[in-house]
Amino acid sequence: MALVNRSLVTIDDLSNGEMEALFSLADEMSDSMGKQLGLCRGKVMASLFFEPSTRTRLSFETAIHRLGGSVVTAVDVKATSLAKGESIADMARVIGSYADIIVIRHPWEGAVKVVADYAGVPVINAGDGGHQHPTQTLLDLYTIKKARQTIKGLKIALWGDLKYGRTVHSLMFALAKLGADILFCPSPGLEVPQHIIDKLVTEYGGELEKYDAANSAVKKMPSTLDAIYITPGSPHQLAMMPNLSLQVELEKGVDALYVTRPQKERFAASKEGKESEERYPVVDKKLLKEKEFKKTLIMHPLPRVDELAYELDTDPRSMYFKQAALGVPVRMALIASLLGVKEISPAQEDSLPQTDYPVYQREYGVRCPNPRCVSVQETEIKYLKPEFKIVKSRPLTLRCAYCEHGFEPKYIASTEWHEGILAEKKYHSADSHWTRKIKPENLIIFDSESDAGAHGFKPSHYAKGEHETGDDRGKMSKEQ
Amino acid sequence: MALVNRSLVTIDDLSNGEMEALFSLADEMSDSMGKQLGLCRGKVMASLFFEPSTRTRLSFETAIHRLGGSVVTAVDVKATSLAKGESIADMARVIGSYADIIVIRHPWEGAVKVVADYAGVPVINAGDGGHQHPTQTLLDLYTIKKARQTIKGLKIALWGDLKYGRTVHSLMFALAKLGADILFCPSPGLEVPQHIIDKLVTEYGGELEKYDAANSAVKKMPSTLDAIYITPGSPHQLAMMPNLSLQVELEKGVDALYVTRPQKERFAASKEGKESEERYPVVDKKLLKEKEFKKTLIMHPLPRVDELAYELDTDPRSMYFKQAALGVPVRMALIASLLGVKEISPAQEDSLPQTDYPVYQREYGVRCPNPRCVSVQETEIKYLKPEFKIVKSRPLTLRCAYCEHGFEPKYIASTEWHEGILAEKKYHSADSHWTRKIKPENLIIFDSESDAGAHGFKPSHYAKGEHETGDDRGKMSKEQ
Amino acid sequence: MALVNRSLVTIDDLSNGEMEALFSLADEMSDSMGKQLGLCRGKVMASLFFEPSTRTRLSFETAIHRLGGSVVTAVDVKATSLAKGESIADMARVIGSYADIIVIRHPWEGAVKVVADYAGVPVINAGDGGHQHPTQTLLDLYTIKKARQTIKGLKIALWGDLKYGRTVHSLMFALAKLGADILFCPSPGLEVPQHIIDKLVTEYGGELEKYDAANSAVKKMPSTLDAIYITPGSPHQLAMMPNLSLQVELEKGVDALYVTRPQKERFAASKEGKESEERYPVVDKKLLKEKEFKKTLIMHPLPRVDELAYELDTDPRSMYFKQAALGVPVRMALIASLLGVKEISPAQEDSLPQTDYPVYQREYGVRCPNPRCVSVQETEIKYLKPEFKIVKSRPLTLRCAYCEHGFEPKYIASTEWHEGILAEKKYHSADSHWTRKIKPENLIIFDSESDAGAHGFKPSHYAKGEHETGDDRGKMSKEQ
Repeated sequence: MALVNRSLVTIDDLSNGEMEALFSLADEMSDSMGKQLGLCRGKVMASLFFEPSTRTRLSFETAIHRLGGSVVTAVDVKATSLAKGESIADMARVIGSYADIIVIRHPWEGAVKVVADYAGVPVINAGDGGHQHPTQTLLDLYTIKKARQTIKGLKIALWGDLKYGRTVHSLMFALAKLGADILFCPSPGLEVPQHIIDKLVTEYGGELEKYDAANSAVKKMPSTLDAIYITPGSPHQLAMMPNLSLQVELEKGVDALYVTRPQKERFAASKEGKESEERYPVVDKKLLKEKEFKKTLIMHPLPRVDELAYELDTDPRSMYFKQAALGVPVRMALIASLLGVKEISPAQEDSLPQTDYPVYQREYGVRCPNPRCVSVQETEIKYLKPEFKIVKSRPLTLRCAYCEHGFEPKYIASTEWHEGILAEKKYHSADSHWTRKIKPENLIIFDSESDAGAHGFKPSHYAKGEHETGDDRGKMSKEQ
Repeated sequence: MALVNRSLVTIDDLSNGEMEALFSLADEMSDSMGKQLGLCRGKVMASLFFEPSTRTRLSFETAIHRLGGSVVTAVDVKATSLAKGESIADMARVIGSYADIIVIRHPWEGAVKVVADYAGVPVINAGDGGHQHPTQTLLDLYTIKKARQTIKGLKIALWGDLKYGRTVHSLMFALAKLGADILFCPSPGLEVPQHIIDKLVTEYGGELEKYDAANSAVKKMPSTLDAIYITPGSPHQLAMMPNLSLQVELEKGVDALYVTRPQKERFAASKEGKESEERYPVVDKKLLKEKEFKKTLIMHPLPRVDELAYELDTDPRSMYFKQAALGVPVRMALIASLLGVKEISPAQEDSLPQTDYPVYQREYGVRCPNPRCVSVQETEIKYLKPEFKIVKSRPLTLRCAYCEHGFEPKYIASTEWHEGILAEKKYHSADSHWTRKIKPENLIIFDSESDAGAHGFKPSHYAKGEHETGDDRGKMSKEQ
Repeated sequence: MALVNRSLVTIDDLSNGEMEALFSLADEMSDSMGKQLGLCRGKVMASLFFEPSTRTRLSFETAIHRLGGSVVTAVDVKATSLAKGESIADMARVIGSYADIIVIRHPWEGAVKVVADYAGVPVINAGDGGHQHPTQTLLDLYTIKKARQTIKGLKIALWGDLKYGRTVHSLMFALAKLGADILFCPSPGLEVPQHIIDKLVTEYGGELEKYDAANSAVKKMPSTLDAIYITPGSPHQLAMMPNLSLQVELEKGVDALYVTRPQKERFAASKEGKESEERYPVVDKKLLKEKEFKKTLIMHPLPRVDELAYELDTDPRSMYFKQAALGVPVRMALIASLLGVKEISPAQEDSLPQTDYPVYQREYGVRCPNPRCVSVQETEIKYLKPEFKIVKSRPLTLRCAYCEHGFEPKYIASTEWHEGILAEKKYHSADSHWTRKIKPENLIIFDSESDAGAHGFKPSHYAKGEHETGDDRGKMSKEQ
């Protein structure tokens, strides 16, 4: 499948084959920069940054210039008509009628999907809140690929803030897809969120094992190692007997150590922030003297603060400035592919990974509970219909189609309750057995009793979840 | 007259023929974008936005890129040396020595005229406060022209905030000039200002009729229809018997409905703002079901807030996103013409409309009472001489040469009062008969008694206007 | 020596011959702008402005566009990752991996040296705090050169704020180097700082004479004339008998009067600011009627506020708008030379001026006392080692290698005090005779007693400077 006229909103928008093909094209781009100058002559890229960034923006803008194209830039929220109450869809349609391609960073999670839905031209996500930052992932993978030739089977340790860093979230999914094992080394309190873990295990088919340092022979591993994601492609015995084989595997060494800074600006409470900052682990020469780091690539998406010592800058294992530099050819390859001036040809059998979940979409009822989600913003609710994937039925779990936030709504009802007799409109607890009895196309989901009441529904016998909790719930879970 | 090296400060700077020729060139620009890439190679456009804007700025910048030229941009007031107290004239001279053409938006009304006076290169007004936004008007007209082939004889309804919207003011003058009838449908309290009405009637020669919905057979017209401007080119009987023939005409349908958002940022008092917002009429599917809107082009300069329903976005009559898109070829045509890389050839007999008013200019005395006028700003009074057109003599009415604000000054005197005898320096009420006795070249106009006194003038017998009001004043008015 | 791949951090980075060669190249650039369009095709310039500026930034950006290159721009501190705590070195390395050349303005003095040290590509200083602004100096010199053919032997008066204006500081050094006489005409309280005077006299070999207006026959000289720097190239008798011959010389006329605005934003106390503003001298037509200004070039780096009257704008002696215009070809010449697309060939015998001072560099001990120096900023001390030149030994005077701030530290010690016996670690007053007895490579310098104590040093007999002041000190000075 060609990339022309497509958008890159999340890293899932690219198949493994497409990623590999982009990396080959990136090689070509760096080999002969001069020759690429004619590729995008006359093309205009809109570079829209509604959140602070210099590094990413200048990287994209350098990329289009090196392809011979032009840029129009908007960088300050206050300097835009959005301040006049304009919706993202309107902005997308207008800018899409000027430019040939749009690169956008936005603080609202899921905002870039909306831009891609309305712009009419290819759109690249340069970061949407805490959601995704897929081109950072592409350049991370490209850096590893150039150093190790492959990503399949590598052991990659992710270090630091694994809770708020959109960069590591995108990276986890891509590593899982490409068949690497992932070592989670979070700073205390900044562990990987459960909905990310769920997605990793459910959609990429690997297993997650908690790592018990006390019972392990691998004493030298970084003290913060918390859990390991074992890709389905890993040796059979590793997946079967993780604690034993892991020791053996880990002693062979870590292929890359991906360090992240504390995303202080997203720390909710000041207390959380302060503690997390104080306990935040530092990667320095001493740590890297350990045997398992002998050939480890030291990576960081930058900017760094204090978590990565300056003394490592001259260490040949350090890859972080190289990562930044490789961002330009990767973005050149991506832009050229989406604009169709270069065609990439992924392997024939290659296809996008697909997990088919039922879709829930209704004008009323439940809304995404993520306050940073684009779908709940005042300027956007005028035209955006809420949309969710039903990713689990017990407990009923929805994933927002915009921000991919997962959550468990409280109440359900059916559009066909008693052959449409209004007097019988009842709602139930989402914990009740009714959740699986109602056909997805008939399902109505509510956030609250008052919301259900406002639409004429009355509580049923099963509206309070309490009588079904405990044993019963556990039992039904086992049935699944 | 060629456009090369001229500036576009107000829509009056273009003759009808020049506008038509620009529209033809815009057609050429959109037909073959690729071919235009060589036109402005090596040309540098300065894009200076001292007020928030993304849409307009990116449209201009896209235009120069599509012509193969380059842009230098300054977008934030605080990020400029103007914050150090620099004058607009100095800025204009410096930037004019760098760039080949300047596009500027500025909050002070009349500021763009000053830039054009000093820059030494062509200057395009991208909006100066509440004054004008002529390229928006060009793209509005171009959109109508493309859909209806002509503008002459069309019935165009202007809807919403007709008081503060610079966009509709520029559009009114252009529509009048091009021979369209204008239906004013203001939101209550946001009617067209009197000085705009005066200019329409005096300089474009049409008539304004109040529309009386109660006595009209055209019940279905939008309830907010307030008045109709009838162009001199309209059928004779329409101009003579407006109330009867209008009904017939209006039933044939409105050609375009131009909706504007409430310009909240310019609402003076918070009360005015709040009331205006609450009563602001909404254009939606229901309104557009009326017969007279069957073939109406729905237009909006964007951004919209709530005055135009999203449900209309897929309606084939909706033109607002097309308007935005057509801004690029129109601006390409304009830039190419002003830079002289494309020549337009308007019809031979074509000429700029000219109403020759006497000019009043003096170092001292009356100043423009508009606090947003460039001529009264602290950094500009050092070098800008006040300048006015005397547009009416009874009551004496001046129009500022910079911001075009009209007003009635209070006191007058003469430089030749009694053969130069200083002791006889007297000033009179502007209401008095002396106003027309003093030759324009001898006239001195004061804002206040204290100003007159400060320049050595004493009140005359006629300094207080009261004794001449009433009958006398009415009589003299009839004489005019 | 070719300029390719070098950086321009201070005006001292260019030899006289290189400056002359740049001016010739600038002539070529303005003669045939069209032909230069191919020179930098495919080159990307990063334009990083961490302090407000429009004029300088747009001038540089216009320059690269006229050479056919592209620009990526970052203008707002808050819109950058620096706000996340990133160091200047990291930023320099990343941007240096994107762009071919970096132009940077930064509020910290010495910051541009750090960028040049780490970027790996040529870097141009577009102003670093109160330190330097060398391209402004180049265009000032180029303007004088074009009007007077040479700079050697000219009499240039510097007028206004000679204390905070980085522009005049760079200019002074360049004028001294090129052999002009400099007349200092400061606004009261805004005299040239002593460390600048010291550098002028010591490194450029001229003499400074206070000008005594009361005893001078040249009554008509601007009342603010304070001192005159006499270049070594001046006629012998002028240097020997300044007061007499100066009168004769000055009556022949001033070649250029370089006016500067009060740098209010750097005025420390509000009182200093207010007084300085009130007493700030104005250059107007009346002043310029004096005989010695008959053929004077009136110059100003702009923006002006009130110190230069608008009435002079049409005076043929006024050069300030021409200066701004000439900035573009000068910067084109510089960029083209640093990128190596144009080679300049200075005269063979030409070399950079070098004053070899001993270098003092140590991880601990004295730090630069300038609070705006890059080397003392929180984000930079992690990796920047303090470094100083020892420019004088009595009193011991250091010059910071980053911001070039000069100061007299208080305490000294030696690494070889008593054959390495720790118990004997003593520190002394920097005023004491020990200062010259300790070999530079063994010297340790402390800011304070507590700092010395913290490193295990105890006060010696000579730790308090008092007992050596007076006679003794004077005597030793004579020995020097």
